[in-house]
Amino acid sequence: MNRNGVLGSMCFPSFVQFCGQLFARARDKDVAIHLLRAYNDWHIDEWCGSHPDRFIPLAIPPLWDPELMADEVRRVADKGCHAVTFSENPHKLGWPHIFGGHWDPFFAACEDTGTVVCLHIGSSSTQIETAPGAPIDVMITLTPLNTMQAATDLLWSPVLRRFPTLQFALSEGGTGWIPYWLERVDYVYQQHRFWTHQDFGDRLPSEVAREHFTFCFISDRAGIDERHRIGVDRITWECDYPHSDSSWPHSPEALAKQLEGVPDDEVAKITHENAMRRFRWDPFGRRPRERCTVGALRAEAGS
Amino acid sequence: MNRNGVLGSMCFPSFVQFCGQLFARARDKDVAIHLLRAYNDWHIDEWCGSHPDRFIPLAIPPLWDPELMADEVRRVADKGCHAVTFSENPHKLGWPHIFGGHWDPFFAACEDTGTVVCLHIGSSSTQIETAPGAPIDVMITLTPLNTMQAATDLLWSPVLRRFPTLQFALSEGGTGWIPYWLERVDYVYQQHRFWTHQDFGDRLPSEVAREHFTFCFISDRAGIDERHRIGVDRITWECDYPHSDSSWPHSPEALAKQLEGVPDDEVAKITHENAMRRFRWDPFGRRPRERCTVGALRAEAGS
Repeated sequence: MNRNGVLGSMCFPSFVQFCGQLFARARDKDVAIHLLRAYNDWHIDEWCGSHPDRFIPLAIPPLWDPELMADEVRRVADKGCHAVTFSENPHKLGWPHIFGGHWDPFFAACEDTGTVVCLHIGSSSTQIETAPGAPIDVMITLTPLNTMQAATDLLWSPVLRRFPTLQFALSEGGTGWIPYWLERVDYVYQQHRFWTHQDFGDRLPSEVAREHFTFCFISDRAGIDERHRIGVDRITWECDYPHSDSSWPHSPEALAKQLEGVPDDEVAKITHENAMRRFRWDPFGRRPRERCTVGALRAEAGS
Repeated sequence: MNRNGVLGSMCFPSFVQFCGQLFARARDKDVAIHLLRAYNDWHIDEWCGSHPDRFIPLAIPPLWDPELMADEVRRVADKGCHAVTFSENPHKLGWPHIFGGHWDPFFAACEDTGTVVCLHIGSSSTQIETAPGAPIDVMITLTPLNTMQAATDLLWSPVLRRFPTLQFALSEGGTGWIPYWLERVDYVYQQHRFWTHQDFGDRLPSEVAREHFTFCFISDRAGIDERHRIGVDRITWECDYPHSDSSWPHSPEALAKQLEGVPDDEVAKITHENAMRRFRWDPFGRRPRERCTVGALRAEAGS
């Protein structure tokens, strides 16, 4: 992180999978819930707790029981963790979809505690496959579509309207497609609601979407240029370290190029202020600002 | 068409399905090829031939045999038909995918004769389904993703590089997502080609894409605003009559609103010149320009 000039990171789980699928598959759920809590305690207290100026805590939920999920959200919120992972499509993991009320206790707990639900691409344990034998570049190119699908599911489901202040972070899904998507959902609503019976009252689906989703990009000039259509308060940047989509160790240079022409106050929002506010995370309370710059961090790494 | 102020249309088949799946499923292929040729003859000679100033001919191919497909492309090209449908994903219809050489005779015939391969959304006979029980609005919203998938397949397949002048029209897929997609394919190429072994020589995938695809939108301000990133010569408009996404009978007014601020020469390209050039179709040779305006057409309809 220092070498890449990155102050803060939110670390998604890998070994236990993005939303704790490993524990959700366990036959002995009594053991599983203890292991899951131990994982969250380790992640929050040890991993993030050792470097609270560098890591934003992110819990995993016990997917097999929405009431237990709600309990865990409340338990970690008391410890200062305001983010939890969930699946971009629980149906593909063998759990109920989001269109009924199955997950309501979980969503209610997240809304009550101001916990952000983080949907990482791949958290449905599936990727878009157009045909067996397709070059892997196809899958890599289309991966962000998982996020478009997840956002579309949520928007047309009752979830956002039932939990009007609930927040979702769409992790690693990119931003350049969002102006198109926001326009598309409004068009679909205006053209088809008379027979699909969707009802957003006196609002448009795009307005509701803008209140619930925070988007995230690695490299995405199309999204930067259209940031005001997306909402500058709704865009965050990531570097995807240590995956091969990452711009490490040249992320600051790559991002600076992307942000050419963007005013400083908007750069501040996109690079850190939006994430700080959304996840209630304040590194500057523990680390003087002058030690948080790209140059200062790189100096610490001796590079 | 007159009532909607629309001069010209390309009519996709419905009863026989977008790329003639009906005939491709027939057990007796001798009968099927005769029926298919009769369909194309009727479409080209009778339907379009009766109103050559209003309809752009579009043939269907005998999907079950790429050599027969090539013959049919050449046969209809001789009759002045320069467009043929194909599947956005033949693998999903039970035929070989596009990553091998199976379809080469067909693509070669299209390239030789300057025939545009038209991929309509839904021509894989599948739609994106996130979960059974999802509101139908999800499927409607995500339908254009079929086009993004088809373009991605083609771009990473050998097809575009093997047939450098072959043209594809991506019908009804929208345009607003394209700047993001062009950026994404270049990013994927630059980050991953060392292990995926894709090779575009001294070019970028986005450059190659811009030479092969013509895109199409119904309502898409995001795409209009970003038209220079997409390529103004590569964008066409459609009204989707008679489907429920259509803006009929107010298409001219709806489109004029979308095109506010766009210079006249670019409006001309998007509304008709690009389609005329791409499909080698010239209505003005048969119908004076003053009878081709929205007002003149509506006057003919008595509206």
